[in-house]
Amino acid sequence: MGKEQRTAITPRRDQDYPEWYQQVIKASDLAENSPVRGCMVIKPWGYAIWENIRNILDGMFKETGVKNAYFPMFIPKRFLEKEAEHVQGFAKECAVVTHHRLEEGEEGRLVPAGPLEEPLVVRPTSETIIGESFSRWVSSYRDLPLLINQWCNVVRWEMRTRIFLRTSEFLWQEGHTAHASRKEAMERTLDMLNIYEKLAQGYLAIPVIRGEKTAFERFPGAVNSYTLEAMMQDRKALQAGTSHFLGQNFARASEIKYQSAQEKEEHAWTTSWGVSTRLIGAIIMTHSDDDGLILPPMIAASHVVLMPIAKKAEHRSSVMGFTHALARELTDLSYHQRKLVVEIDDREIGGRGWDWIKKGIPLRVEIGPRDIAEDSVFVGRRDRDPKDKVSIRRGEFVKTVISMLDDIQMNLFDRALRFRDENTVRIDSKDDFYAFFTPNDAVNPEIHAGFALAHWCGGEVCEEKIQQDLSVTIRCIPLEDEPETGPCVICGSNSSGRVVFAKAY
Amino acid sequence: MGKEQRTAITPRRDQDYPEWYQQVIKASDLAENSPVRGCMVIKPWGYAIWENIRNILDGMFKETGVKNAYFPMFIPKRFLEKEAEHVQGFAKECAVVTHHRLEEGEEGRLVPAGPLEEPLVVRPTSETIIGESFSRWVSSYRDLPLLINQWCNVVRWEMRTRIFLRTSEFLWQEGHTAHASRKEAMERTLDMLNIYEKLAQGYLAIPVIRGEKTAFERFPGAVNSYTLEAMMQDRKALQAGTSHFLGQNFARASEIKYQSAQEKEEHAWTTSWGVSTRLIGAIIMTHSDDDGLILPPMIAASHVVLMPIAKKAEHRSSVMGFTHALARELTDLSYHQRKLVVEIDDREIGGRGWDWIKKGIPLRVEIGPRDIAEDSVFVGRRDRDPKDKVSIRRGEFVKTVISMLDDIQMNLFDRALRFRDENTVRIDSKDDFYAFFTPNDAVNPEIHAGFALAHWCGGEVCEEKIQQDLSVTIRCIPLEDEPETGPCVICGSNSSGRVVFAKAY
Repeated sequence: MGKEQRTAITPRRDQDYPEWYQQVIKASDLAENSPVRGCMVIKPWGYAIWENIRNILDGMFKETGVKNAYFPMFIPKRFLEKEAEHVQGFAKECAVVTHHRLEEGEEGRLVPAGPLEEPLVVRPTSETIIGESFSRWVSSYRDLPLLINQWCNVVRWEMRTRIFLRTSEFLWQEGHTAHASRKEAMERTLDMLNIYEKLAQGYLAIPVIRGEKTAFERFPGAVNSYTLEAMMQDRKALQAGTSHFLGQNFARASEIKYQSAQEKEEHAWTTSWGVSTRLIGAIIMTHSDDDGLILPPMIAASHVVLMPIAKKAEHRSSVMGFTHALARELTDLSYHQRKLVVEIDDREIGGRGWDWIKKGIPLRVEIGPRDIAEDSVFVGRRDRDPKDKVSIRRGEFVKTVISMLDDIQMNLFDRALRFRDENTVRIDSKDDFYAFFTPNDAVNPEIHAGFALAHWCGGEVCEEKIQQDLSVTIRCIPLEDEPETGPCVICGSNSSGRVVFAKAY
Repeated sequence: MGKEQRTAITPRRDQDYPEWYQQVIKASDLAENSPVRGCMVIKPWGYAIWENIRNILDGMFKETGVKNAYFPMFIPKRFLEKEAEHVQGFAKECAVVTHHRLEEGEEGRLVPAGPLEEPLVVRPTSETIIGESFSRWVSSYRDLPLLINQWCNVVRWEMRTRIFLRTSEFLWQEGHTAHASRKEAMERTLDMLNIYEKLAQGYLAIPVIRGEKTAFERFPGAVNSYTLEAMMQDRKALQAGTSHFLGQNFARASEIKYQSAQEKEEHAWTTSWGVSTRLIGAIIMTHSDDDGLILPPMIAASHVVLMPIAKKAEHRSSVMGFTHALARELTDLSYHQRKLVVEIDDREIGGRGWDWIKKGIPLRVEIGPRDIAEDSVFVGRRDRDPKDKVSIRRGEFVKTVISMLDDIQMNLFDRALRFRDENTVRIDSKDDFYAFFTPNDAVNPEIHAGFALAHWCGGEVCEEKIQQDLSVTIRCIPLEDEPETGPCVICGSNSSGRVVFAKAY
């Protein structure tokens, strides 16, 4: 390496990855930790990403017949207790409401009063409360399928929190469906996984592996859990969406029963599926660099920033006129079903450009008197080196801005895919496996080796062993791989296919 | 009256208004009470109304520079205590989280565990928690104004609940802004009131009176509270949006300070404003009739239902073909910035038409073999008598459907305005005032007299007296009325203008 290059974010990824992550969030103004333990404040620049994700998904859901609804946030304790595995999974980390009033106590301080007869849990997920409604909504096979989604907040009391990735309160959507047959419910489970894949790859520019979770990693109470696994730049895996086939477990727990066409009483087959604000963490860690956030244009809050430069007062009015005229032309354009969003930053300060680089806006446009004289603009792309800026004729820029954004979008996906492929290896021996997952870089123990595709016998003993020895988990049993037999990389027993091993968020 | 007409909803409005309200909600499938005390389930037909309201408002907010964000749902007790009036107003009815875990107790039952050091309150409103962020976001006059909104759920523990109107949990938006001057904050307060007026009158077809709340009715901690007051069909008032000028009260409580251009440290001036799912209750009670819900087209989940009629099997394919072709033509149309939403109801059951009347869809279209032979459709409008249906040529229907919807929208507003005007009286004597508000109809004590415009001296004594004697409150001091002096209708002291008195939700 030559001389150390200065970067806009300190530390760099290779110096301290977790700290780099926090600093990117801070510098881009996406969100912040709040004084409420484990909760975050999602700031406008971050919330706009969530709004875009919501609009994209909501449209795709509705095209498949899903309708939105809203269910109570409070779940009576007895509801949660209905499904044994489910309550085991969530009771250890839930916010419990026990009182409905604050009253003046000693020294005038307010103390909880009005104790509730039964404690209420703030929903960690809504299978049990929605199941209660479904049990009343469904009576005949004609009422099925029931296809419901809700956008809401949920709470899982986390001890070690990390903004976007693991917070006590987060935003998500949770879909819940009920069907008259196992086959139809299973199809719905996989259809929704495909929608999430389309979101991840087509909009977030995050390549994902579709697969099934092992029994050990399954959603509490599910029969099968499907997942999308993405590789972050520290080569750890992050789950980017899950879809669960719940069999008849929750239908039995909530008594969701229907009369079949043959007039038999049957339990429905249910599914649930969700993605959360965690995806914003995945976007940050997939694309950003040592200069800050990089946003895929499809979900960026804004697409283009115009920065007028008029150091001399005499240039100000022509530069501002040009800038506003250009902004009007650009905002008339459509970018994939939404309007092109343009910012004008006319603050007279140094470092404006770097502010926008750190915020990850796809295109930066400088407009000075010399540019105007040449009827051109000076354009920087966030997927290229900050200094790599080009002069483009104004008309040409307006004509090509949409395809430039598409090019950035594609470039980000390709880069992420290449990175994942470069850091995914097939491993066939136990020694190689242990070597792969044993940190060999004392300087930065947070950068990991990547994904290992290795044979696994299907036994929980092997699965737990590697988790204990290496903190490595089976991320998924990939859905699309060709069947291939071989010996389990841990115990040598027969395996019917390779699975994805990795350290994970 | 002639012979008793059968209605789709039992009881009728004039028989038992509160029960009629519940039955309209049930028959239209808008929402239901949940087993969680005081909480409701908003079903898809009701939630779609909320989504439309959200989209309309969100667009109007953003046009004025407001940006969305998201803040924690949990408020530490000490935050709430910062503003004395505010905590007084909300401490008596709030959900208190005291534990973060459920653990197995006696007999295997789960009990709250992991007590929190400080109880958390589920937000009843977010001035205090958002104020904490604002105090960190604002340091210079250059950071102002700060214009933030959030869409979220809030909790106010209500003892007597009523679906949409008063529920322990409800959905709303809450806007919070901070400004460098009193004048600018006051302008923002009134600008937002105007946006709510536009929503109410232009979209929900609900005529409203813009006014200021009396000190007694003010938001806890506000300097001025502004409101929109609407008249329901039982002639009670319902608040359809509020906007508060908070002065520097919350800025002092949360220490939102900025350095002025003159380098002086100042407290910011703040505002807050919100509307909630309560508006859905207002829509129901303004427009619906004894046959069920009537939805203003601008916020209806769907605009048109097509009901193919093919009693003989040989007609089925032509009727269905015609229906689907028409649906395609209709869904290509735009209705005020959104697509026309069309339902096809091909259930082979009697009473389909009545189902849609009860659900309040603006237009019902029947399509039978005879209609097809004449290339026409048979159309019913929800703002007219159910039997008043007309045959319209298919091409003509497609050409006029948008203007028919506009006509329905206007008709609903006009009807509601006429109703309010007919039930609003100017009262100048105490006897008349008491007579006006004393129920004289023993059969239905839930139908009230209306709005009284009367002089008020401005004193809380008179205000409390009529509340105690008659359960009547001052809904607002109207903003637009011409100044007019006169004697207070209660005590005879000087008054500088008439105010709106009514019973209220």
